[in-house]
Amino acid sequence: MAQTADHEEPGRTPRTARGERTKQALLDAAAIEFGEKGFHETSITTITNRAGTALGSFYTYFESKEEIFRALVQFMSAEVARAAGGALEGERGVFQREQAALRSFLAFAAEHGEVYRIIDEAEFVDPAAWRSHYEKTAARICKRLEDAAEAGEIREDAGELHAWALMGMNVFLGLRYAVWDRDRQPADVAEAARDLIENGLRRRKPADS
Amino acid sequence: MAQTADHEEPGRTPRTARGERTKQALLDAAAIEFGEKGFHETSITTITNRAGTALGSFYTYFESKEEIFRALVQFMSAEVARAAGGALEGERGVFQREQAALRSFLAFAAEHGEVYRIIDEAEFVDPAAWRSHYEKTAARICKRLEDAAEAGEIREDAGELHAWALMGMNVFLGLRYAVWDRDRQPADVAEAARDLIENGLRRRKPADS
Repeated sequence: MAQTADHEEPGRTPRTARGERTKQALLDAAAIEFGEKGFHETSITTITNRAGTALGSFYTYFESKEEIFRALVQFMSAEVARAAGGALEGERGVFQREQAALRSFLAFAAEHGEVYRIIDEAEFVDPAAWRSHYEKTAARICKRLEDAAEAGEIREDAGELHAWALMGMNVFLGLRYAVWDRDRQPADVAEAARDLIENGLRRRKPADS
Repeated sequence: MAQTADHEEPGRTPRTARGERTKQALLDAAAIEFGEKGFHETSITTITNRAGTALGSFYTYFESKEEIFRALVQFMSAEVARAAGGALEGERGVFQREQAALRSFLAFAAEHGEVYRIIDEAEFVDPAAWRSHYEKTAARICKRLEDAAEAGEIREDAGELHAWALMGMNVFLGLRYAVWDRDRQPADVAEAARDLIENGLRRRKPADS
């Protein structure tokens, strides 16, 4: 598998708006194919058939099934970041921001159930892209926590370890309550998670309530 | 793939102590082979070669590569439960128990790095075994939290959602600090996680410290 530097976007960049649409159609089709069948059962032809493009168009933008898979993992990872990031605007407190980010991630995961399967399969198909997804996600959460700690808003030792803990919490709450079963509302799940990371589970003293 | 009821152990049960050892040798060899090469690149012969057993012995206990993989996922899942469960004895408070369980899980994951890869690959090879692993793990944490809530030791609403949050936290702390990098001691990681779930991240009032 060709090594691509992490900051480089895999696949060739289209020169026209039409090319942009074709490349995106291929990525969208790949998301469905890889999401439903997994990497091994998906072929370039099943992707181009679903996208309604010619095989030649595929090779205009991607060199291989591996390359479009890597492009898709980066695209999904960016979409997750965008979903969470967009929700942050307008939220003032750090706990409100984390709550909004999780609520938005849960909605995204409920609508794009394939995101889990694709990112999880990257562990076996493209380990570097898989690891990069989690490292970048944790780094974003860590930055928000460190800024809040700096501002005296939360515990001053808040940092990387807490970011990994929050990310893991979000990933598994998404798996349980957005992908497997939707027996609780995303807003309730995000609210309960916010309460957990803000206050912990210890019994509240009457003065706290 | 043959359907096995979840409570049934896959593979035939040995009738002798020697048979028991052979079956375990096959499982241990399978853990290394699947852990290093993944499911698709592993064959029954690479497993029996590593175990030093005849091919016939494999078929005495397992019907297929799929069946030994499923047996291995259940074995690993039980080992994770055993590692965490053994650590609980003697710990009196619920937060101390969760801290001990995580510390013990981190030690287990550091020693058996393959546990992540095997359980993660089960999502694609044996989704029912994969889901069952997480549902059982969450159910054990949930039981501990509900007992503590019942006893008035922690918040009375502590339950399933918090169990999934804690499990996700533990899984990602293990990935980051036991499998990928060991730049922090397991005891420190478990202590910080305990503090997070006990007290949350909010700034402590002078009276709290």
